[in-house]
Amino acid sequence: MTNQGWVLETRPVEKLDATCLAWREVPLPAVGAGSVRVKTLMLSLDPTNRIWAGPTESYLPPVPLGTVMRGIAVGVVEESQYAGLQVGDVVQGMMGWKEHAVLPGVALTLLPKDVTPEQWFGVFGHIGLTAYFGLLEVGQAKAGETLVVSAAAGAVGSLVGQIGKILGMRVVGIAGGPEKCKWIVEELGFDAAIDYKNEEVGKRLRELCPDGIDVDFEKVGGEIMDACLARLGLRGRVVLCGMISQYNATSIPEGPKNLANVLMQRGGIEGFIVLDYLGRAGEAFGKLGEWLATGKLQFATDVVVGLENAPTALDRLFIGANRGKLMVKVADNG
Amino acid sequence: MTNQGWVLETRPVEKLDATCLAWREVPLPAVGAGSVRVKTLMLSLDPTNRIWAGPTESYLPPVPLGTVMRGIAVGVVEESQYAGLQVGDVVQGMMGWKEHAVLPGVALTLLPKDVTPEQWFGVFGHIGLTAYFGLLEVGQAKAGETLVVSAAAGAVGSLVGQIGKILGMRVVGIAGGPEKCKWIVEELGFDAAIDYKNEEVGKRLRELCPDGIDVDFEKVGGEIMDACLARLGLRGRVVLCGMISQYNATSIPEGPKNLANVLMQRGGIEGFIVLDYLGRAGEAFGKLGEWLATGKLQFATDVVVGLENAPTALDRLFIGANRGKLMVKVADNG
Repeated sequence: MTNQGWVLETRPVEKLDATCLAWREVPLPAVGAGSVRVKTLMLSLDPTNRIWAGPTESYLPPVPLGTVMRGIAVGVVEESQYAGLQVGDVVQGMMGWKEHAVLPGVALTLLPKDVTPEQWFGVFGHIGLTAYFGLLEVGQAKAGETLVVSAAAGAVGSLVGQIGKILGMRVVGIAGGPEKCKWIVEELGFDAAIDYKNEEVGKRLRELCPDGIDVDFEKVGGEIMDACLARLGLRGRVVLCGMISQYNATSIPEGPKNLANVLMQRGGIEGFIVLDYLGRAGEAFGKLGEWLATGKLQFATDVVVGLENAPTALDRLFIGANRGKLMVKVADNG
Repeated sequence: MTNQGWVLETRPVEKLDATCLAWREVPLPAVGAGSVRVKTLMLSLDPTNRIWAGPTESYLPPVPLGTVMRGIAVGVVEESQYAGLQVGDVVQGMMGWKEHAVLPGVALTLLPKDVTPEQWFGVFGHIGLTAYFGLLEVGQAKAGETLVVSAAAGAVGSLVGQIGKILGMRVVGIAGGPEKCKWIVEELGFDAAIDYKNEEVGKRLRELCPDGIDVDFEKVGGEIMDACLARLGLRGRVVLCGMISQYNATSIPEGPKNLANVLMQRGGIEGFIVLDYLGRAGEAFGKLGEWLATGKLQFATDVVVGLENAPTALDRLFIGANRGKLMVKVADNG
């Protein structure tokens, strides 16, 4: 059995792409007691992949050079020495950017029988948990409040805005281009959209949020976040969930100029990493499943075929080419 | 009876000083029902005076041009048409930068009989409340944690560090110059001091806070805050209480570059204005009084004599000339 994958050879200077990743035959250990061998079916691509490839200890250690790139994936169990999983079970785990992985059974999550990998990554899994706990727990979102979501046509943002509407919030999405803006308003039910590629974000926020922003679900950072800080309302909360505009920067970018408004408004900025909420995943799954089943929640996926295309596919997140959840189809189940 | 005071003539471009304030004879209305006339004894000078003089609605409206500069003061009641106050009572109120004021009795706070104006502004009043509620409520300070205080030899900072020690925290103060640093460590009992005028703040924070900062009580903003953000520990909290380094800026200064660390550490930045806690002042007064009486808390004052010197005195805050609470003695009681 061969096993191919992407090995991180050098730290990215700007983009994480095939200049720092190498397509290689990689080891596949024997399946020891308590472990299983998994065939990767679907690989999730996330902005945080770029952070993991960098040199800095963040919320996880950097991917060591010379090892397979870290990645969250869905796979099917091919061999099991772990009592909790059988051959044929479909699981999520940190398989990495490779075709097969051997992992401890306890590190894997069994997918519900009727959930496809697309559904799992699109609306459940880490994306759904991020949207759900970020908005409800960190953002303390309440009916009647004004929610602004950046990267609003992305995987997390598109769910956050819809959950905001379910909660009874007024929802403004910031997205790139008229098509995405049309989609989040007409299909997903956002109240309004700001096209950051063609409109002045600060001006539009003043128009659309006359009483200030109560919750800014922040995935972008940089100038877009700064415009939101300037418009933050009394006791407004920034759920600092991502700063994708900064991850490819070759030097540390200038910070937000409008922090003084956080002081004046008694606002809050809170960093949020979904890993802290994995223990409460059940709560979110129940609600997300109910909203999905009753048609209150939609999701979109952007599926690129072939693990060999993962490095180029990743860039879709950074240029804003994806709508909904970006993932790479690695193999069929069977 | 004459009544002189400082009138805000133009908005400050940089400093709030005698180029935008004019020393004038100002009106003194008759004392109507429910009002009292107060003779100003002591005027508090605070960094926030600069904010009030600016053009922007912040947490209070800007001081209207052509009116007396807003200021918190202690005064003695000279005439009363308010049942709750008698001639001779010593009160705090928004008397402004003038010799006499007529104010509604309900807008005044009676000082305890045995508290001098210096003690009131030094350890009680808005300074003590800021230190107490900022550290305990906003900062959620806990024994064993590492506290960093900027402007540590200032009115609020010097109290915050001492309260941190009373709570059982490890306390690092950031202050300007060896004398202030010596004072906060040797006299006030801080564990360590960083002299931002002669030392590299980021490097010293790495040495002094090897496990990261749990609470940053932030009065300065700018580069000092940025260095603290870079060193924020897991779930570290920034009590954003002031940004004095920014108030005299002629254009909006560059923001902090290290916000990404707030995300990675699941940290929080929370804006704090003491006005929100006035209703709970009694809680703080009890504790502050007890700590003062038992010698656990010290305070220093920097008293400039003569209301005519208020504009030049204010600059002492911005150049870091003061140690402890800056105030202007306007008149004797009697």
